[in-house]
Parts: sequence; C-alpha cells; structure tokens
Amino acid sequence: MTASSRPGTARPVPGPDDDLVERLLDGQRRALARTLSRIEDGTPDQLRGLVQRLHPMGGNARVLGVTGAPGVGKSTLTNALATALRTRDRRVAVLAVDPSSPFSGGALLGDRVRMQGHHADEGVFIRSMAARGHLGGLSFATPQAVVVLDAAGFDDVIIETVGVGQSEVDIAGTADTTLVAMAPGMGDSIQAAKAGILEIADVFVVNKADQSGAGKLESELRGMLEMGHASGAVGIGRDAWWPPIVRTVAVRGDGLEELVSAIDDHGAHLADTGLGEQRRRDRAVQLVRELALARVRARFEVGPGDGRLGALAERVARRELDPYTAADRLLDNVDDGAATPTGSVGR
Amino acid sequence: MTASSRPGTARPVPGPDDDLVERLLDGQRRALARTLSRIEDGTPDQLRGLVQRLHPMGGNARVLGVTGAPGVGKSTLTNALATALRTRDRRVAVLAVDPSSPFSGGALLGDRVRMQGHHADEGVFIRSMAARGHLGGLSFATPQAVVVLDAAGFDDVIIETVGVGQSEVDIAGTADTTLVAMAPGMGDSIQAAKAGILEIADVFVVNKADQSGAGKLESELRGMLEMGHASGAVGIGRDAWWPPIVRTVAVRGDGLEELVSAIDDHGAHLADTGLGEQRRRDRAVQLVRELALARVRARFEVGPGDGRLGALAERVARRELDPYTAADRLLDNVDDGAATPTGSVGR
Repeated sequence: MTASSRPGTARPVPGPDDDLVERLLDGQRRALARTLSRIEDGTPDQLRGLVQRLHPMGGNARVLGVTGAPGVGKSTLTNALATALRTRDRRVAVLAVDPSSPFSGGALLGDRVRMQGHHADEGVFIRSMAARGHLGGLSFATPQAVVVLDAAGFDDVIIETVGVGQSEVDIAGTADTTLVAMAPGMGDSIQAAKAGILEIADVFVVNKADQSGAGKLESELRGMLEMGHASGAVGIGRDAWWPPIVRTVAVRGDGLEELVSAIDDHGAHLADTGLGEQRRRDRAVQLVRELALARVRARFEVGPGDGRLGALAERVARRELDPYTAADRLLDNVDDGAATPTGSVGR
Repeated sequence: MTASSRPGTARPVPGPDDDLVERLLDGQRRALARTLSRIEDGTPDQLRGLVQRLHPMGGNARVLGVTGAPGVGKSTLTNALATALRTRDRRVAVLAVDPSSPFSGGALLGDRVRMQGHHADEGVFIRSMAARGHLGGLSFATPQAVVVLDAAGFDDVIIETVGVGQSEVDIAGTADTTLVAMAPGMGDSIQAAKAGILEIADVFVVNKADQSGAGKLESELRGMLEMGHASGAVGIGRDAWWPPIVRTVAVRGDGLEELVSAIDDHGAHLADTGLGEQRRRDRAVQLVRELALARVRARFEVGPGDGRLGALAERVARRELDPYTAADRLLDNVDDGAATPTGSVGR
C-alpha cells in the first residue's frame, strides 16, 4: 500500500529516500538505522518525506514506555524485557531516550553494551536517540522514530527514558502501556506520589527486588495506590485499572515472565475498554502538535539573529518592550504570513 | 520606575499580585519565593502580569550557567561558587534546574541540603525549578524565573542544569558565562568533544581535581581546544576567547578564587568585545520565542482531546491522514484565528 492510496493523505513528492524506504520495508537493518539517523539529523523536508511515506504502513506496533529515576536499572530492565518478549516471538525495538545526554546512538559504546545477548538476533533492534540538529528536540524526533519502527514491522517498540512527568519526552502520552520502575533505597517513592506518578503508571516495577527494602517499597506503593483509590484517582469508574506491582531482578532475568504477563493483561484491558483507541489518538495528538510547533518555531528563525524575532528581542534586551508584548507581536507577524506557501516557511 | 513609563511597553493591568511585587522589590524573601512559585504553577495571566511588572526593573544581573554530566559535582561546585561570590559582596541566586526530575524546590529536602552554609545569609537565595503545570516546560519557566531574580536585585544568577546541548533548558542561550564542569574518571571527555561542548564552554572546570586522572582530563581538554583552534572553532577572530581550564575541589572550596577570577575575566571580555550585548539579546530571543510558542500551544489545546487538534489526530490514528498534513491543517486553523483577541486564546 502506498501513501497516496489513502483518502486525505497528501501524495508525497518522490525523493532520493525512496530506495531507503523500500529497503527498510524489506527488513534491512542498515536501511532502518539510516532512516533513524535521518530522523535525528535530516532536513525538515527529508523527515516530512519519510514520515509521509511510512506512516500509512504502521499502526500495528504496541508501544511500551519504561521510565524511572536514574539508578533504578532501567537499561538492564529494558534489555531483559526485550529478551522476554523475544521468547514469545515478538520483534522488539528499543528507543533509549536520554534528554540529559548530548550523545546519540548509532555507533556509540552504550548501544553496543546494550546489545549484549541480542547481537545475533535480527528480531531485536536497539537505538539511542538524540536530536542534535532539531529545533524541536527529542519531543519532536521521538514520535517520528516510533512511526518508522512501527512501519518497519516491530511488534513492540519500547521507549526508555529517564524521569517521570517532567521529561522532555512525555512517555505517558506516547505509550500504550507505561512501566514505572523503582528500586529499593532510592528514597523517592513518597515524593514520587506527589508528582502524579499514579496517573501515568500502568504497571509498577520494583527492580533490584533482591535488595533489602524491596518489601518496604512495595508496601509504600500499595499504600499509595489505596490512598489514590480513596481519593478517586486509581481504579475507579467503568475503565478502572489497578496498576499491578511486579518484582524483578532484571540483571538475572527474574520476574520478567510476570512482567510480560502484566503488560499483556494491560493490553487486554486497553482493548476491552476502548482505552487503547484513546491512547493511539493521544499519541497522534502529541505527534501532530510537535510537528506544528516545529513549523512555527522554524518560521521564527529566519536567519540567525535576523528577522522579526531578533528585532523584537533587541528591544526586550534594552527594556523598551516587555517579553510578553514582544511575543504577541511576533505571533501577529507569523499570522500575517499565513498566506505564505508552506514551502517557503519551512526551515 | 513602572513598566508604563517605558516607551513601547504595554501597561500591565493592575492585579492581585501587585502587593507581592512590591514586597519582592522591597527585598522580602518570602515574596520572592512566592513569586517563583507563581512562575512554576501560576496561570498564564499571572505569569504575564508578573513578568510585565518585573521585566523593566531588571537588566543588571550577571547570569552564569553551570552544566555538566551527572556525577561531576555540579551542586557542590555551585554551592562553593555562591560562597566565593559572597566574599566579594555579591548577592547570589541559584536556580537548580533538573529536567529529569519531577520534583520542584521550595520545601524539598534537596534545597535545604543545598542551603548548608548559607542559612543565615540574606545574600544567597537557592531554588530548584520544576514546571509541573506548564505546557511549555522548563524552557518556558526558567527564563521567566531569571527575569524575577534579576528584578529582585541579585548581582549573580547561577543556573545549574544537567547535561550539555540536549538539555531542555538551553543554558548556553541563557547565560552570560557558561561553565562546563567535568571530573576525572567520568570517561566522557572525548565524547563531549563531539557534542559541541567547545561551542558552549566559556570556562572549563575540572572538579574533583584531587582525584587521579585530573591531569589526564586536563590534557585531553587542552588537546581538544588545540584541535578546535586548528579547525577554526576556538580562539579565532576579532572576539577570540580561549576558554580557561580551572581545577577545583569544590567540596573543600579549593580553586574557587581562581574560578571567580576566570568568570570575571570572561565578563571583561564580554564587555570589551560587545559580545555581552549579543548574549543579552540571545537571552531575550529565547524568552520571547518560548512565550510565543506557549501561546501557540495553548491555542491548540482548546479542551482536553477536543477541538481541531483532536479531530485531526483521530484521522491520523486511523491512518486516513499523515501527521505532517495534519499539522499543516492545524496551523491553517490557528492562522484563521489570528483576529481572535489575545485574552481568549491564552490558557
């Protein structure tokens, strides 16, 4: 099926990436790696072309989010989860997104270490994400990378990212099922409760469960869930879901079968309640919004330090104008340009 | 001086925060803390009112950025730097920004630990930043917090953040002088070279300089600078600046006098070359852009999952429409609404 066979889909202009797309759809890993590099580093037109070609081919991947504070063992957990999903014959892609790191994946040591145990396996693909060249950052690049991996036929796409809630990549808005990983002795379980963790966790993972304090952490989590239930935030209503707490020792692979079952249970819940459709729509909302914001941002930056933004900023720096009024005037200018053809406002 | 006395500055509507602003300008710490909480959690109208009132009063603070990978001792370094600046009778504010943490400051343990040694000192103010409520995240809240601290009369505002380059908060775009902190044995010096670290560092800090490997790290940095010089990226041209490398043991306060001198030297360079004016304008560019983007974002989100974005996303999720075409149509709709008064498009 091609993009143009779908109603309402603009026919993409054939470009030099057509071969790349063909090879990617053919299952060639190098083509996949190169396509993801384009998503990281390509021109806006290359990204548009790739996503417009690949988007119609997707829609089948399950997107799993793995998040948690530094030190809980997220990478190890993700790696073990990939192994466990492979035993069920699912093709698995991992996107490791670290907004605090400037280092992207591809050739870096990090990804090679991560690949341990998956080297000979064509059914696992692991990739770190950075977004050096982009105006929109990782929240711009990540959902487009998911479109690529989805089209490439992976059954599961795992997005692993540091932090909860404040992360640049809103994992809860991106994933079908969000795993929140914790570990004993991190001292953050109570604080975490304040940060809306209950609202984003579909499954809690107590990793490093062989360490002392795992039981205490689990009871604290249970207490939190009870309190959340009492206040109406958890397990209430027609679509009630009570996030299970799964104990793992990811480094040994312990508890991974239980984790996969918990994910599957949540998947069944998503299907039964229609919540799955809602999450897919949320994911599309996020993608469309980020693309639109990137286009607006690109319009602002017509030449470095040049243009209307530069002139307004100059007056703000001199305290002749306050920044809110300057922002209003900048947008008025953008709005004035509404009739400009898209081609000339892109970067 | 009031905002309305400046040419071109829109007269802010008097609001319930006027008292707060008066007390803040009066030097009351609680008023300052409350104002920063408004920047984190307030409504768009509250933020607009505060920034429009306070922006004209600022323009005197020196903004210092402290960045580096986790584990290099940034918090300790920042704390020691604040102490060293106090001995020169400068009033110092610290904004600790951690995009990977959902936990804000104010009452949290972290800030109390940070305050060690500064408790009785009215000349130091330390605050962690989160941006839970905001559509624009930390890149939206941080520059507005700088406006507040500047108006409150601090001589130095130190913004401390994790990571380089990819951070949600573009510290190099915000600071007058950016310190890049490293420590021996972190194994990231070579990778860092690839990540454009040379472009953002005004001063390199080799912290934990009493540990083995400090000499090696420093020579690697020197080699990097030489290579950068050879390729034209460092110390070339009329405004050439050669980033000094300062060794510190922040936990003991060693090397802090040298660090303050290096910062002052860079400040003199900024003044001599006119680069300081450029950085102030860059900071204004960032602030105005983020405010404008937040307003665009707010227009997209007319009701949760409602409105044009929701309808377009629905079609994207069904693969009837590709996300780029959907984003184009969303912006066309926003452009249609250009005549809408500002008040009704804010959140």
